[in-house]
Amino acid sequence: MTERIWTAGLLIIGDEILSGRIQDRNVAPIATWLNLQGIRLTEVRVVPDAMDRIVAAVNALRAENDYLFTTGGIGPTHDDITVDAIAEATGVGVEVHPKARAALEAYYANRGGITEARLRMARVPAGASLVENRMSGAPGIRHGNIFLLAGVPHIASLMLEALSGTIEGGRPLLSRTIGCWVPESEVADILRETEQAHEGCQIGSYPFFREGRVGANFVIRSTDRDRLDACVSDLIERLAADGHAIIQDGI
Amino acid sequence: MTERIWTAGLLIIGDEILSGRIQDRNVAPIATWLNLQGIRLTEVRVVPDAMDRIVAAVNALRAENDYLFTTGGIGPTHDDITVDAIAEATGVGVEVHPKARAALEAYYANRGGITEARLRMARVPAGASLVENRMSGAPGIRHGNIFLLAGVPHIASLMLEALSGTIEGGRPLLSRTIGCWVPESEVADILRETEQAHEGCQIGSYPFFREGRVGANFVIRSTDRDRLDACVSDLIERLAADGHAIIQDGI
Repeated sequence: MTERIWTAGLLIIGDEILSGRIQDRNVAPIATWLNLQGIRLTEVRVVPDAMDRIVAAVNALRAENDYLFTTGGIGPTHDDITVDAIAEATGVGVEVHPKARAALEAYYANRGGITEARLRMARVPAGASLVENRMSGAPGIRHGNIFLLAGVPHIASLMLEALSGTIEGGRPLLSRTIGCWVPESEVADILRETEQAHEGCQIGSYPFFREGRVGANFVIRSTDRDRLDACVSDLIERLAADGHAIIQDGI
Repeated sequence: MTERIWTAGLLIIGDEILSGRIQDRNVAPIATWLNLQGIRLTEVRVVPDAMDRIVAAVNALRAENDYLFTTGGIGPTHDDITVDAIAEATGVGVEVHPKARAALEAYYANRGGITEARLRMARVPAGASLVENRMSGAPGIRHGNIFLLAGVPHIASLMLEALSGTIEGGRPLLSRTIGCWVPESEVADILRETEQAHEGCQIGSYPFFREGRVGANFVIRSTDRDRLDACVSDLIERLAADGHAIIQDGI
């Protein structure tokens, strides 16, 4: 039986990442969270705050994946156009969500009151539901299999927390890490041969230069616990037989 | 006269980013370096170490941009397939570059000698030239308008250093930042109106929650110094007139 693999694409919307002004801090936590839900992140794209670019990326990524997540562009200012872009990409209109409106009104009741700009944050693609956010009153949005998260990393994390366990996935990709103080080129044959000998397992090699020495971490991945363990044991054996000291869980 | 804008796409090749194991640290420095060369980064994609996915992304990004940069997958192990993917995408073969071979032989002369795995790092798409790397002996690669950089950030940076001033670009995008301890929703109208009043300028709004308070940085961008200065002055004036204290250069 072939295992059903659930996949997601991630679209980062933001000129600030493309200009180099801000280092993205959303990809890694979203990738980790997706894996815990049993969903594999297959592609990330970063595009500018431009309608046509967002629409094109949305349609490409959702065609190829079970889910699409976006970050950024759901705030109250003129450069926040994600809702409009998702509506256009999916061929629906934009509406004010009554619950989002109520939440914003409550949140801003003693913070200067609701304004037209703030009401922008209650706009959703028609038919969408909300993803709670106890932090700022501005909700994330679920529109079918598309999830619109905030660009600010800790708010995006809160939205993911609210989504945990609500999206169907498969088995998480399990991983184990082994480290060696060795140039990866010395063990390239061992890595390749070990991977080939273990169906359903992938071995990644991640070299580094640290404390004046070169080393590498080898990450073994599989959705099957037994296969993963067998592959790890075999790799350790082969590396040890070749004279390399193993550092469990990586360096 | 319309200004010629030079653009680049960036392709990050690496399962380790998509699994969340590693936080990307290449996008921001490459984006910043590109801007200094007068080249605008218009899109970033992250794809797994899979031939068909890399080839598809390479062809999409190079069709839409003057330049394409890649990071990752140029090492000696079985998961390093970037050279083969670029060769396939551009319809050429793969060859061993004599200078890269010589550099690797020299580098490994007193480090255990050259091996087949290490020689993998001398393979290039046919006709490509090398991008120097004084750190590890493994060169980056220039193949027409495609640049293959290392995945390890400090090695990628050394390769960019070697490329500085060698690639044609236009005028860099200039930027100025202004900060206010204000919820961005309160000044959304001012931001939108100011941007509309200044052709050739974009204003981005980047809210944050820090030290128990909400604030935002407003980044004004333009390739034209005079237009930028005029837009910044106008924005400061409008914000001040609305009662907001300005923090120069951002918070």
